[in-house]
Amino acid sequence: MARDIYFEDMPVGFYREGGQYLVTEAEVIEFGRRFDPLPVHIDPEAAAASPFGRLIAAGCHILSIGTKLTSELNQDDRFHYICGMGFDEVRFLKPAYVGDVLSVRVEVVSARRSASRPNCGIVIMQQTIKNQCGEMVATLQGAAWTACRSASKPDQQADA
Amino acid sequence: MARDIYFEDMPVGFYREGGQYLVTEAEVIEFGRRFDPLPVHIDPEAAAASPFGRLIAAGCHILSIGTKLTSELNQDDRFHYICGMGFDEVRFLKPAYVGDVLSVRVEVVSARRSASRPNCGIVIMQQTIKNQCGEMVATLQGAAWTACRSASKPDQQADA
Repeated sequence: MARDIYFEDMPVGFYREGGQYLVTEAEVIEFGRRFDPLPVHIDPEAAAASPFGRLIAAGCHILSIGTKLTSELNQDDRFHYICGMGFDEVRFLKPAYVGDVLSVRVEVVSARRSASRPNCGIVIMQQTIKNQCGEMVATLQGAAWTACRSASKPDQQADA
Repeated sequence: MARDIYFEDMPVGFYREGGQYLVTEAEVIEFGRRFDPLPVHIDPEAAAASPFGRLIAAGCHILSIGTKLTSELNQDDRFHYICGMGFDEVRFLKPAYVGDVLSVRVEVVSARRSASRPNCGIVIMQQTIKNQCGEMVATLQGAAWTACRSASKPDQQADA
């Protein structure tokens, strides 16, 4: 049964991991043509002649896949996210090649009440995207406004 | 005529701006369904009942549009980027609504030679995505390995 997941249900250390996302040549080329038409994303011959040796997914594509994998991990619950605030320290550590199977781990590294919006909290999650060999493809931190189950009490620490 | 743009051609202060990207309902929903299936991205009725009042583009979608706009600004030249290293300080400041027309400004804020790879430099660009009202929708810094026209000389400052 779907659970409601509010700010209070995502303390520091809360994590989920898993998923499988196959990086296909068709999608790498289609995404690249639409948003990042560099030869290493859209031209198999040019990619073969590049230092990478074959097609690799665009950075924005990898971030999008990480978001998708995270949403799949959470799909059996009702997460009360309001909206994303941004990303920090996005690092592309290894290429995502055609044929790779990506998975994700997300862990809450910061959770604080909003002082200006007592029904909201700000949750920061560390996201790690790995390939089928367990190698880290990308890491990042994402911050999101999240609804609270109950408004903060005066004695609780709060900021922002 | 297309110019070759190497590391040496992108000093601090080098900038480009412009572009027009219409955010359509069809694309917001399609991108959302594929990568970030929150109600505010895929369900017009739920979005209307949300604090945003209507559909908004996913964060990854906005980043992808920023990359696309940047590639269009550069399409008449041959930019010798090798690959992206990551993003920092990605901030979603205003929603990108269906019907918005986005443009971009990219400016080099850091350019340094690589010590370990003498034919490469690391260029950091500040990217600002604005809507048709001139409001900032998102800001970020992107770092990219970039090919040098010539290897660094011993008297040049270098790191990494």
